[in-house]
Amino acid sequence: MTQIIYGIHPVEEALKSYHLQIQKILIGTQTPHPPLQLILDLANKRKIPVTLTTKEFLERMTKGGVHQNVVGLIKETSYVDVGGALSHWKKKGTKAFFLILDGIQDPQNFGSLIRTALGCGVHGILIPKDRAVGITPVVIKVSAGAAVHLPIARVVNIATTIDALKKEGIWVYGASGEARDLIYQLDLNTDLAIVIGAEGKGIRPLVKKKCDRLFSIPMMGPVSSFNAAVSGGMILYEVMRQRRKIIAN
Amino acid sequence: MTQIIYGIHPVEEALKSYHLQIQKILIGTQTPHPPLQLILDLANKRKIPVTLTTKEFLERMTKGGVHQNVVGLIKETSYVDVGGALSHWKKKGTKAFFLILDGIQDPQNFGSLIRTALGCGVHGILIPKDRAVGITPVVIKVSAGAAVHLPIARVVNIATTIDALKKEGIWVYGASGEARDLIYQLDLNTDLAIVIGAEGKGIRPLVKKKCDRLFSIPMMGPVSSFNAAVSGGMILYEVMRQRRKIIAN
Repeated sequence: MTQIIYGIHPVEEALKSYHLQIQKILIGTQTPHPPLQLILDLANKRKIPVTLTTKEFLERMTKGGVHQNVVGLIKETSYVDVGGALSHWKKKGTKAFFLILDGIQDPQNFGSLIRTALGCGVHGILIPKDRAVGITPVVIKVSAGAAVHLPIARVVNIATTIDALKKEGIWVYGASGEARDLIYQLDLNTDLAIVIGAEGKGIRPLVKKKCDRLFSIPMMGPVSSFNAAVSGGMILYEVMRQRRKIIAN
Repeated sequence: MTQIIYGIHPVEEALKSYHLQIQKILIGTQTPHPPLQLILDLANKRKIPVTLTTKEFLERMTKGGVHQNVVGLIKETSYVDVGGALSHWKKKGTKAFFLILDGIQDPQNFGSLIRTALGCGVHGILIPKDRAVGITPVVIKVSAGAAVHLPIARVVNIATTIDALKKEGIWVYGASGEARDLIYQLDLNTDLAIVIGAEGKGIRPLVKKKCDRLFSIPMMGPVSSFNAAVSGGMILYEVMRQRRKIIAN
């Protein structure tokens, strides 16, 4: 199945990605524009055909999305399997850092979490096949192209996937509003997978039971929760902070 | 001018708020629903009139927003002045914690930052009058009601406002991608205002010059920036973490 991605930054990132297969680039303007020229040059280098079309055609294709006159057709969003995500980690030679998203529904949150994960050094993201948003054009767009750089595995069963990670010596820590341990009280400088649950619902009970530890983010005032993408950002930042601090010392 | 807010959670929070003046509640259903009943009870307690109307009418009012059958009419979004924000801090008796948003444009980011700020213990938010999104119904909705709890001041000139904060003994630290100091290397357990710039553009040069220190968030891999609401979340989390850690020790 062919998927589309659109917007200058996402298409540019996709062209640089090692695991996305772009079939064609569509350009909706004939006016010279340096960022578009860069995309044409990249496409040329990778021998990807470019077709000139109209702005209106791209508008229909992207259902009114902010396409910035460029759309890329990709063969299909290539998920990796758990083994692929693990081997990506092993090649890096750093402490494991995986993100398990147990049922994120909102493409804005998912895209934002992918962008944050890539910037915080996550080796791969694991999502369930059912009851969760997958990698859609909107997700790629919101991720600012990060979705094409980070191995993302879609698994049938999160609980058995956690078992597979544990066999690799990876600790699995889950975010839970009721947990007594605060995120910064845990030692995160270990081979680690962080589990974040669905918006409003949190981690499912069966998945929660599989976690080695649970933690919460401190919160003050009359706020009942942080937004899922924001709390994810805080958690991934904390892991990155602890690891960098140890390297610096 | 009358503004509207909508959705169960935002309206409920607005009814509990100390600085919002609700004129009327509109209900778009006659089916009993416990969360709506809670709103009716709160309105009754505060002697705010309730009008029954149709779902379709609320749909037109909210321009298709997720109103959950309830809309509140508020007199106008009450900004405070800088003095009001400062006195809110002084009443709290804790180390100052202000957030200065130098030109956030996107209502999603602004709403999310307000929610995060309230949850991290921020005393007030300062925004510029021009070239920045104000408190709109969408912002209140995205903030999950937090916008009605947190003093928000809209000022003509951010630079002179920074001077006013400095006179109160408050340090002003600005987020800047190029800064050499990393956020967690700074001592944030001091009377503090954090400045965050516009999406993509960062803090304006004149405002940047006014900052006592600049800091960046560490970032890895092929990511050029974090989303504004996410990086704001990381920064506010780090301030909260340092302060709580010191209290705990």
